[in-house]
Formats: sequence, structure tokens, C-alpha cells
Amino acid sequence: MMAEKIEETLAELLSGARPAILFDAMRHAVMSGGKRLRPRLCLLAAKAVGGNEADALYPACAIELLHSYTLIHDDLPSMDGDTVRRGRPSVWAKFGEANAVLAGDAIQALAFSAAVRAPRNAGRIVAVLAEAGVGVVRGQAAELNGEGDIGFVYRHKTADLFMAAAVTGALAGGGSEADIERLRTYALNLGLAFQHEDNLLDGDSPCSREEAWRKIADFTSKAISALGGLTGDTAPLAALAEKLAVRSA
Amino acid sequence: MMAEKIEETLAELLSGARPAILFDAMRHAVMSGGKRLRPRLCLLAAKAVGGNEADALYPACAIELLHSYTLIHDDLPSMDGDTVRRGRPSVWAKFGEANAVLAGDAIQALAFSAAVRAPRNAGRIVAVLAEAGVGVVRGQAAELNGEGDIGFVYRHKTADLFMAAAVTGALAGGGSEADIERLRTYALNLGLAFQHEDNLLDGDSPCSREEAWRKIADFTSKAISALGGLTGDTAPLAALAEKLAVRSA
Repeated sequence: MMAEKIEETLAELLSGARPAILFDAMRHAVMSGGKRLRPRLCLLAAKAVGGNEADALYPACAIELLHSYTLIHDDLPSMDGDTVRRGRPSVWAKFGEANAVLAGDAIQALAFSAAVRAPRNAGRIVAVLAEAGVGVVRGQAAELNGEGDIGFVYRHKTADLFMAAAVTGALAGGGSEADIERLRTYALNLGLAFQHEDNLLDGDSPCSREEAWRKIADFTSKAISALGGLTGDTAPLAALAEKLAVRSA
Repeated sequence: MMAEKIEETLAELLSGARPAILFDAMRHAVMSGGKRLRPRLCLLAAKAVGGNEADALYPACAIELLHSYTLIHDDLPSMDGDTVRRGRPSVWAKFGEANAVLAGDAIQALAFSAAVRAPRNAGRIVAVLAEAGVGVVRGQAAELNGEGDIGFVYRHKTADLFMAAAVTGALAGGGSEADIERLRTYALNLGLAFQHEDNLLDGDSPCSREEAWRKIADFTSKAISALGGLTGDTAPLAALAEKLAVRSA
């Protein structure tokens, strides 16, 4: 039922009315049946440190909002120029380019409105989210301009947001510094496995299939190892890593 | 010397190195000799509640960063299509459209990194900044799509950020709730006077010159009246309102 809570809370955060076209564009982007992988990771991190998933609800929504806005801007004609996202028109294709820029901008601001409502460690959670917010853009800019190696791009474009999800969840759940570090390591490796697999599925992997699978297995195993020492329930996080590792199968 | 502190702190916040083109674009936008009106307003609000300007330094920089990112995105070809800003090439004209989108996105995230470093009331300051961040976009979207009257556009496009500057400054300075309300009213009227005057100077005022000047005088006088009851030094805020009211003279 936490999955429903996430949908409800996102809908509530996006319930603005004026101007209608802006909020329609924002809802079109966010309420589009995404897998909600990052918010789930955030909630499970709170549980893994022995905390309550409910305490991580706002950070979880904040992470999803941050992720959503990057997709809107990624799809723009000046970026990837994608007209379809999750089987529906992308935001710019449906609402125009200017409204897509603005909808993304407003969703990023809304992510911080959500993050600061965390019932515990709100200041640190905002700081982590903001750092990840700069980080994902660094990854995208490195890829776009061909600056920085593939490790830099994967680390920032994908893993930064996975790490922010896990760390903000751990902070919201009241985890110790050691537990936060464990979850950061878990999420870094999960993010790297995820990005390698994404590229493999898209057919644009920088390495051979065999090499890519070896890396995915390696990152997945490192992610699962990092969970050792956590006192809360880590089984769902281990299962999540295993499930992601065989997405294509 | 607080003016220098603002420049120093902005430069420090923007001191990232990789990828170089992203941080170059960010610095090009922010370190471009703006008037720093909004951060000055933030610092003076801290003083007006009897607090220290230095305590409002990070919120002041956060407000300027938020303002800067909106200018980058406003200038985009899909928005106003301006190639020049403050006598220099706009960010997209110099670094390309995609990099301008990304530089604006990273600067918005950085604004929240700055805001959360406030030494007092950081959580409320982040919440106010985030609300203004959604607000300015609502104003721009209303104007762009011709949704909402001129009052709605002025209120959100301009006054929301003025109010956030004053309120975050008052919060950082430790002001009472009553003082925060006084400064919010001051900044709302200052923002409305500013926007009416901007349009008059640009020659696209929605009312006659006489009517516009009457409104500017009226908003300025309301702004100054709102300062009554504040216990700190309000003279610089009164002077600022008077100076803005005669910008064109």
C-alpha cells in the first residue's frame, strides 16, 4: 500500500490549478505510470535502517519529481528530441517546447517543497537532493558534450539519483552514519548495474555483451554485499537488485 | 562590503569544474554584473528585523541563483529567443540551446544547496524558496499562454521572488511572524511597482503612462508604509523603494 501512497502524494503535490496548461503538463509527465523505482528504493532504505517507510514518503516523492523533470528536459528537441515517452506523447510534443521547459522547471522546485516536508533530517535531505540535482545535470552535460569518460557519465547521470534515493530514505528513517554509507554503496552499485543494463537493452553498450553482463553481475553482487551490517529488513533491497539484474530475461 | 560577500559566495557556489562547459555556462549567466537587487533585499530584510545581514548571505545567494536560472530559460529560442543579456551573448547564444537548458537546471538545484545552508530556519527558508520557484514559473506560463490576467502574471512572475527574498531574509535574521508579514507586504508592493515600471520603460505597459505612474507611486507608498512597526533598521529598504520608483528619471 506504500505504492498507492506514493501515487496519492504525487497527485496531491501536483494538484495546482492555475495556469491549467502548466499543471496539466506537469501531471502528464509525472502521473504516467512510471515504475517508481527510485521512490521505492527510498522507502526500502528507510526500512533497511529499521525506520518507517511512511517517514520517507516525501523524500521518495521528491526523488521521483526530480527524476521526472530530467526526463521532460531530456526529451526536448534541443536535447534528445523524443516525441514519445512511456507510450504517450512527450511533454513538449503535447504541450509545446516552452511549456515543457517550464513544466520541468516547476517540477524541480516542487521536488524541494516535498523534500523539506520530511519529518526528520529535512535539512540534510534537501542538501542531498540538491547535490544530486546538480550531479545528474553534470552527467547529462558530460554525455552531451563528450566531456568525461563513460564512468563519469554513468556515475552522475544515473547513480547520483539512486544514491540520493537511498541516502534520503536512510536519513528519513533515522539511520546511523554507518548505515547511510552502506546504503550509499548499495545504491551506487545498483545504479551502475542499471545503467549498464539499460545500454545493453538499448543496444548501445560501450562494451561487448559478455563484458557488459560480467559488469552487471559484478555491480549487483557488490550492491548486495553492501547491505551486510544493516539492522533493518534488507531482503526487499536484495531482491530489487536481483530483479534489476535480470530485467531483460 | 556585503555586496562583495555576495559576489564571493556566488563564485564559490559556482566553482565546480567538470564538465567545464557546464560550469562555464553557469558562471557566464550568474557572474555577469547583475544589480543583485533581490539578494540586497534579502540582506536588508534580515537587518530590518534586527538581525545580521551575514546570516542571510546564503538565502540571498539562493534567491539570485533562482532568478538567474529563470533568465537563462526565458532567453531560450522556444521562449523569448533573446541572443543578448546584459550586453553579452545570452547563455544559449554562446553555449548552445541544450547547454542553456542544463545550466539553468543545475543553477536551480544549486539555489537549494545554498538556501539550506542558512544558519537559522533553513527548513522554512527552503519551503519559501521552493514555493516561489513554482510561483515564478506559474507567472511565466500564464503570460506565455495568455492564461490569467495581468495581476496574476505580475504577482507571480515578479513579486513572488521579491517576497521570497524579503521573507527568507527575515527568517534568516530571526524575525517574528508579524515582522515577516510586514516584509512580505513590503516586497509584494515593491515587486508590483518594479514590474509596472519595467513595462513602462520597455514601452509595453498595459495602461496609460499617467495611470502607470499613479500605480507605481501607490505601490511604492504601500511598500514604505508596510515597514512601520519593524524594530530594526528599515531606512535602506525605504530608500530602495524610493530609488526603484524613479529608475527612469
